[in-house]
Amino acid sequence: MVGDGSVCILGLGLIGGSLLRAAVSVGREAFGYNRSPQTVEAARADGYDADTDLIAVLDRATAAGSLIVLATPVTAAGPMLDAIAEHASDAPLTDVISVKAQVASMVAERGLTARFVGGHPMAGTAVSGWGATDPELFRGATWAVATDDDADPQVWSAVADLALEVGSVVVPVGTDAHDAAVAAISHLPHLTAAATAAVGGQAGDLALRLAAGSFRDGTRVAGTAPALQRAMLEANRESLAAALDQTIELLAAARTELTEAGTVAGLVEAGHTARLRYDQIAGAGAPSITVAVGSDDWPRRMRIEAQRGSVWRGAQMRSARPE
Amino acid sequence: MVGDGSVCILGLGLIGGSLLRAAVSVGREAFGYNRSPQTVEAARADGYDADTDLIAVLDRATAAGSLIVLATPVTAAGPMLDAIAEHASDAPLTDVISVKAQVASMVAERGLTARFVGGHPMAGTAVSGWGATDPELFRGATWAVATDDDADPQVWSAVADLALEVGSVVVPVGTDAHDAAVAAISHLPHLTAAATAAVGGQAGDLALRLAAGSFRDGTRVAGTAPALQRAMLEANRESLAAALDQTIELLAAARTELTEAGTVAGLVEAGHTARLRYDQIAGAGAPSITVAVGSDDWPRRMRIEAQRGSVWRGAQMRSARPE
Repeated sequence: MVGDGSVCILGLGLIGGSLLRAAVSVGREAFGYNRSPQTVEAARADGYDADTDLIAVLDRATAAGSLIVLATPVTAAGPMLDAIAEHASDAPLTDVISVKAQVASMVAERGLTARFVGGHPMAGTAVSGWGATDPELFRGATWAVATDDDADPQVWSAVADLALEVGSVVVPVGTDAHDAAVAAISHLPHLTAAATAAVGGQAGDLALRLAAGSFRDGTRVAGTAPALQRAMLEANRESLAAALDQTIELLAAARTELTEAGTVAGLVEAGHTARLRYDQIAGAGAPSITVAVGSDDWPRRMRIEAQRGSVWRGAQMRSARPE
Repeated sequence: MVGDGSVCILGLGLIGGSLLRAAVSVGREAFGYNRSPQTVEAARADGYDADTDLIAVLDRATAAGSLIVLATPVTAAGPMLDAIAEHASDAPLTDVISVKAQVASMVAERGLTARFVGGHPMAGTAVSGWGATDPELFRGATWAVATDDDADPQVWSAVADLALEVGSVVVPVGTDAHDAAVAAISHLPHLTAAATAAVGGQAGDLALRLAAGSFRDGTRVAGTAPALQRAMLEANRESLAAALDQTIELLAAARTELTEAGTVAGLVEAGHTARLRYDQIAGAGAPSITVAVGSDDWPRRMRIEAQRGSVWRGAQMRSARPE
């Protein structure tokens, strides 16, 4: 383990705040920073160690060798990384932001790459802020951990261990592959939900009154605060544009099939097949990755096992992890 | 009330079967037909009055003056309406099919229009068949009742009363307006869910393993049996094509905005606004329609009140409804 096992969380919104609660609940020392005094007061009132003084928090993380978790929206990450570079450049660093390439590039610009392993817990709700935090948010979730060729095994293990301890399974994935995947399964659903909601809204109040389950579920994430959605989606521009292109193509083909042949079989069947595959994957227990962290060529071999459907549940007995 | 208040349900799938259960649970005499002996046996085993003999069921409905409820998929409605025209042409008739213009036209072809008032309970799940039926399915739902200028007040009241008794509120709506509205808020969500699921599937198994709430909720209805989805969507071709066009236009504009200006603000804001409006409408108590069934120009006046957000909860004291 890097340092003393403590966790320093920068940003106490839904994800960061929930992680502070979760880390404490599993026995970790954990403390956090938020720029809003209201949030810090709310966290303190709930018994958590939180502060508005970023420099003091970073100095403490440096002294303890804490794992620093960057948990702000990507739009606020730049100034945080500046402060980390100045006050905690040797600290092991991860993040819980929903895009990985842009964060990795911001980290690289500040010379922090060697101590950085990005992460992304696939958990969230349409609500936000400290009031919505939940120590159980990560239980049963998948936590993507960036597993690029140059990943530091100690930092990688520190990130993966934290994810495992709060109840998630780890999916090792390359930075670029992560962004392409989440564009399709996390960011695109925000835009299809928004389009579905907007077309319903254009149909008028009587139509909205007739709306039932398919509309309610299909537009749920459109209710997320627009600023949070935009921060996430706009940071993954290239991959999201590609996913949008695929979507438009599928819908245009369905439109043609509907008007020319009177059927929507193509799209309905494709969607049904994909949804059943998702149910199968979500419902089945995945095999465990057996690659030892730090062994020869471990990041590439881990990514291959993950591509085949395996997940990381912790070190094996024969671990070659450097101590 | 028309006849003896009994209800004859043709088709005992999710909607028809649930209506049989619901009608009995509120004290109505109710009986049903299904062509599948397995379904009829399952319904009988649960204590319900069901039969595979369509002619016998229709003769009984005619003798009792039952309200006949056509509850098959639209693709199976033709032969049922043929049998109704031959054996029960005077019976009051409604349906619970998700498109109204095509059913109305099939009814007209058989000379049954005078006894017909279409209906559409906005309730359902991704599962189907007798095993999924639920007597509480309609509680708290909205039940669209076709309220065209030539609607028979007695049949209209019989349909509306049934909807109210099983726990729904009635939304009076013209046949064509209904189909345009459900294309936007019920049928389109199936295609956006299918496209979202298909793009996720194309991204591969690792992407599906990373999928969380936004994908799970946004693609739920893609799991509905394709034949049921197709029967519903393909019967509403013209309105659905228009809703698809609007959707493609919104997504294409978002694509342009994203690549040219780096933002998805337009679509995200529009979707957020529409979703909040939906939440507001779904959460608020609607005022009651005060038009008396059978009074002068009542269908048009009801439709106008419904457009303004009111719903039908039953006759007022000053009802001019013919007895």
